[in-house]
Amino acid sequence: MEMPTYRPGLEGVIATTTSVSYLDVDIEQILVRGYDLIELARELKYSDVAYLVIYGNLPNSSQSEEFAKELTSKAEIPEELYRLFELMPKNTSVMDALRTGVSFLSGYESPDRLGNNSYDTNLERGINLLAKVPTIAVSAYRVLHGLSVVRPNPNIGYSENFLYMITGILPDAESTDAFDKIHTCYIEHEMPNSTFAARVIASTLSDMYGAVTGAVASLKGPLHGGANEAAIKMVLEILTDGGPDKAEAYTMNKLKRRERIMGFGHRVYMKKYDPRALFLRDYIPRLADNIPNGMQISDIYKKVEYVMNREKGLYPNTDYPIGILYYMLGIPIPLYTPIFLCSRMAGLAAHVLEQHDDNRLFRPRVIYNGRRGLTI
Amino acid sequence: MEMPTYRPGLEGVIATTTSVSYLDVDIEQILVRGYDLIELARELKYSDVAYLVIYGNLPNSSQSEEFAKELTSKAEIPEELYRLFELMPKNTSVMDALRTGVSFLSGYESPDRLGNNSYDTNLERGINLLAKVPTIAVSAYRVLHGLSVVRPNPNIGYSENFLYMITGILPDAESTDAFDKIHTCYIEHEMPNSTFAARVIASTLSDMYGAVTGAVASLKGPLHGGANEAAIKMVLEILTDGGPDKAEAYTMNKLKRRERIMGFGHRVYMKKYDPRALFLRDYIPRLADNIPNGMQISDIYKKVEYVMNREKGLYPNTDYPIGILYYMLGIPIPLYTPIFLCSRMAGLAAHVLEQHDDNRLFRPRVIYNGRRGLTI
Repeated sequence: MEMPTYRPGLEGVIATTTSVSYLDVDIEQILVRGYDLIELARELKYSDVAYLVIYGNLPNSSQSEEFAKELTSKAEIPEELYRLFELMPKNTSVMDALRTGVSFLSGYESPDRLGNNSYDTNLERGINLLAKVPTIAVSAYRVLHGLSVVRPNPNIGYSENFLYMITGILPDAESTDAFDKIHTCYIEHEMPNSTFAARVIASTLSDMYGAVTGAVASLKGPLHGGANEAAIKMVLEILTDGGPDKAEAYTMNKLKRRERIMGFGHRVYMKKYDPRALFLRDYIPRLADNIPNGMQISDIYKKVEYVMNREKGLYPNTDYPIGILYYMLGIPIPLYTPIFLCSRMAGLAAHVLEQHDDNRLFRPRVIYNGRRGLTI
Repeated sequence: MEMPTYRPGLEGVIATTTSVSYLDVDIEQILVRGYDLIELARELKYSDVAYLVIYGNLPNSSQSEEFAKELTSKAEIPEELYRLFELMPKNTSVMDALRTGVSFLSGYESPDRLGNNSYDTNLERGINLLAKVPTIAVSAYRVLHGLSVVRPNPNIGYSENFLYMITGILPDAESTDAFDKIHTCYIEHEMPNSTFAARVIASTLSDMYGAVTGAVASLKGPLHGGANEAAIKMVLEILTDGGPDKAEAYTMNKLKRRERIMGFGHRVYMKKYDPRALFLRDYIPRLADNIPNGMQISDIYKKVEYVMNREKGLYPNTDYPIGILYYMLGIPIPLYTPIFLCSRMAGLAAHVLEQHDDNRLFRPRVIYNGRRGLTI
């Protein structure tokens, strides 16, 4: 029972057991409920994978249909939430509005029910949140930017409706498919900071709203959810700065100034190619026609990837292609991180379910490096 | 660099270094910035100890006066927050309203400023939150319970104003003093779940609002912030159930049914008397005259304490006397946990300052105990 060595950031420290997902770095695989995440993304739609993540098993065809319907039928949010977004200072970021909105939702459950963290109650709560977070995020964006609200359309699928609420236009099949694949790639990733934050909070037997509110707060941080946004901003900077021909010089300059290039490397896969990035980068040329300069952006993507690998031995993580794909899908940049949170909602629900099912309060200790023995 | 043994709940695992506070269990002392917390509570008022916790040094007399003034002058909250509480479903708990309110506040900073986690910006933000959380909590309580709002009075001290907002009446000196001492006893406690949650979130370089929002979510959990409320509820149950003479039988019955008795024991001080509880229990007979049956409640307190020690070798933790003292101060029970959060706000600000000052992203790993090798 000796005290373990201190590892800053709990790097390499086991925080919990889980059956939801695992980064099997040796075989370069993201395991989700026993399946390879990339196979799931390739073969299934997001709502099926969300079902798998939450229930632990793949849906059969009628379960798949019912679950997809359940998500779209529960997508509408209470009227007070639209009024909440109107009340917010216009400076409020969409991510903060999403955090406030999720927190606000807890009041719609009676105090007795809210204190109930049983599997069935948590399950219903998690699915309800999964259905509603896209509407919260997109509506907050629209209200904060002075746009009229686009109510969710219960007659179309999850990803089609998500893009529809963002742009106000029914998306084509290719765009819906790309968005859906990205969503699946983001669904679960073992124990990132936001999932950990949710489990730490849930371990006090606080409810799922509180745990998810904490996860939104975590994902907002630039070291976590901000990387896809940073990636597209860099690519757009290179585009206006001279295009693909300037990509190498730009990257070398940034490295020389020891500036961090977001979207590369990962604490866990430090030296390998994130399989999600490998899968998603093929969508970039396919969507390039959607926007002006699409092929130039695609070329910049490849150039920076090449230079980063040559100079630092680093490969892109999934945030790098996703930042570019979101841009090609016409998604406004302030929505990138909120959408990331929405895709992760299924995983967050599964982790809170698991935490409450076999709970132990997180309460670590510290090394005290302050003063001692002072008197007033 | 071998992987440490898995400790559920990170029990005994070092999560970080800190100079804010430390539980020195060997000498039964809570060390706060080098001082014994009990000496601080005995000698100083809360705002002075809050200054110490945040700045790292005790204030001189002019700093003490200025800081107390700063807190009361910043206690008023934006008008939109009162409208936010009106918008909330009446079922919303005060703790959830506080969580939503803190989250809402981030929109009052420009996006540029909000992305700035420098020491000076964080310091100002932390003091602003310290000043405003009491007003948020009490106003949310009043609005949700259909009472008229009592605006903060900038001409009286922090604790006097806090009680004044709760009851609408200027408190007497003895009540203000007891409330202030409790507040100091709650100010810091090393690495409880809420402080840990705040640091985990802050480690993504997310801002203080997000970190504190997560801490509110954590403290709401019945395994964390709910214990003072559970303690007074038990004492009141014994009171209506036969009074002090029935306290022993009640406690024995609960133990026989293996029901948890809140307010006793602590993961860190398992076998010792929490020094805060030892200090604060003397206030119980002093405030007993404030309420009908006060002396009976005081007797029940002592009886349960005696039986718990005899049967389980457990001593009260600070939540046990505090639940009773809050009741004797006329504080409505739904405010107990929100007030606990308010007292801890100084510590939370100090921990976020420290985390951002020398940051490492929290990103632990897991033991995967799920299935493997499945294919669709």
